[in-house]
Amino acid sequence: MFQSGYQGTGVRDICSAAGAPQGSFTNHFRSKEAFAREVLDRYFAHVKTAVSEALNDKSLTPRQRLKRYLDIISGRLEGDRWRRGCLIGDFSLEASSHSEFLRERLEAIFQEWRTPFAECIAEAQAAGEIDSKFDPVDLAEFLLASWEGAILRMKVEQAPAALERFKTIIFNTVFKEQK
Amino acid sequence: MFQSGYQGTGVRDICSAAGAPQGSFTNHFRSKEAFAREVLDRYFAHVKTAVSEALNDKSLTPRQRLKRYLDIISGRLEGDRWRRGCLIGDFSLEASSHSEFLRERLEAIFQEWRTPFAECIAEAQAAGEIDSKFDPVDLAEFLLASWEGAILRMKVEQAPAALERFKTIIFNTVFKEQK
Repeated sequence: MFQSGYQGTGVRDICSAAGAPQGSFTNHFRSKEAFAREVLDRYFAHVKTAVSEALNDKSLTPRQRLKRYLDIISGRLEGDRWRRGCLIGDFSLEASSHSEFLRERLEAIFQEWRTPFAECIAEAQAAGEIDSKFDPVDLAEFLLASWEGAILRMKVEQAPAALERFKTIIFNTVFKEQK
Repeated sequence: MFQSGYQGTGVRDICSAAGAPQGSFTNHFRSKEAFAREVLDRYFAHVKTAVSEALNDKSLTPRQRLKRYLDIISGRLEGDRWRRGCLIGDFSLEASSHSEFLRERLEAIFQEWRTPFAECIAEAQAAGEIDSKFDPVDLAEFLLASWEGAILRMKVEQAPAALERFKTIIFNTVFKEQK
């Protein structure tokens, strides 16, 4: 699904890639949608390991933890030589208009995803490390959505420039360190 | 292609939607890729009318023109009740990994797209309207990529919150009016 997208992947392709008979797909999943949701959930679990690794690192300041998250994801994207982006972003653009089931799951994922970021941002604001003008939840939503945009641009360029540009600009403006 | 994506749209679907025999497709296009490039180019021409309308409006300051562009696009997205995003963004995530031909075209589109924005940003910087810390081309790339991220988030929510949040935050930080 990473390679061919939600629409471009048939049940036949999935079974063929898994070396499994088609009958066994039907035994495990009600539909391609149900399978895709399982894929999405497992992918999100993988994303959450990066969230925990970065945002729970108490040796860093809250602002540094935000940056650490983007650096961890940048490293993963480099591992795929900037050919693959984020499955949550891919599904958001491609699957959300076809499947109400997946769209609702994606909406729940974004809401769950932003929560630890909003907490970290609130902590940075409380410590006076970043500006307190905006609501932490709004800043968390903004950060994750804009970062998806940077990944989208990276995928077209097949190079990390958009990721690095994003980090440089965002940490010198929206998340600028307060003196 | 807006509805089903690049992968999800077959030549048969295209001909059926156009009420044209499949033979006539082959007479006009070498491949689905070639057809998709034509679709993309026409879509980009449509985007460029919004770019011109906003960035050539000399009754506005350069910074106001940037905001005007996002407002025009927001209006178009509202016209589709936030169910459709941007075809350039859709193709960037979905088609760029399948088709080197489309990926190269998308890269050229992003470079052409950013140019009038970089000029407008340079004008705003020269007038002291916004901060001059960053290169105008980098800021233009950042703006367009992050905006694609806001559109992605909008599509999942099927509501304009992510667009409005983006504009509020960006014009009070990265493109903040200098006093």
